[in-house]
Amino acid sequence: MISQASIEQIVAQVLDDVGELGVQEQNAAARSAAAEESVRREQAEHVNMIKKTSAMTEFVGTALGDTIGLVIANVDNELLKMMELDQKFRSIGILGSRTGAGPHIMAADEAVKATNTEIIKIELARDTKGGAGHGSLILFGGTDVSDVKRAIEVALGELERTFGDVYSNDAGHIELQYSARASYALEKAFGSPLGKACGVIVGAPAAIGVLMADVAVKSANVETVAFSSPAKGTSFSNEVILIVSGDAGAVRQAVISARDVGRNLLEALSGPTHSVTNKPYI
Amino acid sequence: MISQASIEQIVAQVLDDVGELGVQEQNAAARSAAAEESVRREQAEHVNMIKKTSAMTEFVGTALGDTIGLVIANVDNELLKMMELDQKFRSIGILGSRTGAGPHIMAADEAVKATNTEIIKIELARDTKGGAGHGSLILFGGTDVSDVKRAIEVALGELERTFGDVYSNDAGHIELQYSARASYALEKAFGSPLGKACGVIVGAPAAIGVLMADVAVKSANVETVAFSSPAKGTSFSNEVILIVSGDAGAVRQAVISARDVGRNLLEALSGPTHSVTNKPYI
Amino acid sequence: MISQASIEQIVAQVLDDVGELGVQEQNAAARSAAAEESVRREQAEHVNMIKKTSAMTEFVGTALGDTIGLVIANVDNELLKMMELDQKFRSIGILGSRTGAGPHIMAADEAVKATNTEIIKIELARDTKGGAGHGSLILFGGTDVSDVKRAIEVALGELERTFGDVYSNDAGHIELQYSARASYALEKAFGSPLGKACGVIVGAPAAIGVLMADVAVKSANVETVAFSSPAKGTSFSNEVILIVSGDAGAVRQAVISARDVGRNLLEALSGPTHSVTNKPYI
Repeated sequence: MISQASIEQIVAQVLDDVGELGVQEQNAAARSAAAEESVRREQAEHVNMIKKTSAMTEFVGTALGDTIGLVIANVDNELLKMMELDQKFRSIGILGSRTGAGPHIMAADEAVKATNTEIIKIELARDTKGGAGHGSLILFGGTDVSDVKRAIEVALGELERTFGDVYSNDAGHIELQYSARASYALEKAFGSPLGKACGVIVGAPAAIGVLMADVAVKSANVETVAFSSPAKGTSFSNEVILIVSGDAGAVRQAVISARDVGRNLLEALSGPTHSVTNKPYI
Repeated sequence: MISQASIEQIVAQVLDDVGELGVQEQNAAARSAAAEESVRREQAEHVNMIKKTSAMTEFVGTALGDTIGLVIANVDNELLKMMELDQKFRSIGILGSRTGAGPHIMAADEAVKATNTEIIKIELARDTKGGAGHGSLILFGGTDVSDVKRAIEVALGELERTFGDVYSNDAGHIELQYSARASYALEKAFGSPLGKACGVIVGAPAAIGVLMADVAVKSANVETVAFSSPAKGTSFSNEVILIVSGDAGAVRQAVISARDVGRNLLEALSGPTHSVTNKPYI
Repeated sequence: MISQASIEQIVAQVLDDVGELGVQEQNAAARSAAAEESVRREQAEHVNMIKKTSAMTEFVGTALGDTIGLVIANVDNELLKMMELDQKFRSIGILGSRTGAGPHIMAADEAVKATNTEIIKIELARDTKGGAGHGSLILFGGTDVSDVKRAIEVALGELERTFGDVYSNDAGHIELQYSARASYALEKAFGSPLGKACGVIVGAPAAIGVLMADVAVKSANVETVAFSSPAKGTSFSNEVILIVSGDAGAVRQAVISARDVGRNLLEALSGPTHSVTNKPYI
């Protein structure tokens, strides 16, 4: 997450990154003065850009999966109407990504627990930039901009964790999420009962997800809350998604069993898989 | 656009291109006689191919975004029935792309103004080759093949302009369109009132589009005509699309304000954006 | 197809492949001992992985298009309910892919002819990894696991053939399928009459498919069974899909005529196309 408080760090980081890029480019390509000048210009542009954006009060930060977090302090009534949102919300928080729906819903669930906000919309694009899954758009509503901003900050901060049990290779991905106590985002997205443990089990291509779902329900005494497949409940993504609920231990067991079989199958298709962040959390 | 009249130019161009390719390959790769022979064969094939296609009376031309323009002089009745098209049209013009919906609808709008044709179908695939947006399929109907062919030629010619305010980087794209006087394509696609100015505002990932929409409606006195988001009105693309109508000056102002904020946000996600054609038109 | 019987061959093949990879990497990159060690570890991991997966009784094999074939001997009742499948099936076979729907439906059609199974679900994701078409999920039901396993084996084995008339380049693809005698998969997917010849004609981008469809119905006396386009009948893929039925000779003629025009158009968009397998079968 990029918080406004750490803009200086970011600028320093960008300078570093672009510096490294410059070094690589010097080695790889023609080392002409023109090329160096272009790198310098690009670098200056990027820094200006980040300064400009961070001056926008609407910008909160970015995260994994081309995720962006934004707020609107005083949202236009016409926009609320067009989006079919309750007119009572003056401020909205916006969390959107190209890659990832589960990680964002799970992060939003923590954010809504931690703040005085409501989840008012969850929409899943068919995206992941040519991958098999979804992108996401999640809106938080609040009466004060500081509340929705805090929700976005919490959600952006959670993503590093909630991407931890996404495993992928060239053939697809599997994804697992686990919460000991589901809150309003998991309820809104999947109908998961409030306050009970919730597990999210995703396999792509969908064939792998079918087997993961079978293993999950066989391995522990859990309730199935929702089931989605390419033609039903997804945005035509190539996924099977199973949501389970129940006692914490059972849900966790179901998720872990599905993960084991899912990784094996995905690896049979096209080689090793690794956690996207190298930090599995379940 | 490739018109049939300029086939000789195209063939010459291809020979040139392949020639250049040959030179690059010589420098980059093994300079063996076998490789050169292969380049020569590829070159001959490509020329033959274009000669073959241009001999097809149905082929009109190609353009940006993997766009192809075709006509059918005397369309099969069975096909009209299957496509649920009015049987009165003997000739149809076909404009289709992998990447781009807004540019094509806007180009079709000019084409229908300029010719004796009707827009009979607009369908938007979830495409852009792994990007966040749509591809398109637009059909023109007419009583004479020369009319629909002219419509396709006009549309192909307009695309260079209408791609001018598409800005993209690795994280997504924003797109703006503006017409001082909406015609039948904008009416059919979005319900934009005929004869009034129309603005199209697109942001991807969708989160960026939400903020662009808010800025647009706040910045000028415009009417909102349509609003689409990943789960509603799009083909599950990762976009928010706002259509505004009204006085020319106000619509233009709304579009430009949205463009400024959209570029800043997209650039905050992953670096500089540039006009796809380097020729913004708004 | 990878059958369990040939695991030793696969392991040998993988060792070979990884060996080759090692050689290439030695030539291409830094030849450090660390790099070689990493290759060796990757190789060992991959072999372990395949051994592990092949020990899973559920795994049947893999094929082109990131296709995986699986079976569940004794499917969980809860899963059957969630997937809205008939409770009478104890065993299910699962055929899924990232790329390809037509090839898989056609392969499933042969599999169902050859075995004591039923096609119980066909779902098409919007996939092909950034391409213009579909991925697929096909389920076979049976009373015995050996039956559904045999169905999956047959289907995996057919895919090499049924990918034969898929032609693609950077701008899209065209696909043709032909069966002299349609069975239950073609009936379930498209409503094609049982026992009669069936042709599948696909063009992407969709504009090309419109012209292919027109040529097909004009070139032979066939019945049109189904027609799909980006906004109707597909999962928003950028395709037009025409299904024709009738006498074998006429259906074959329609398919071949559409193939010729489709390849020409696709090649006009972005250069030579070739059969994906280099083995056209129609």
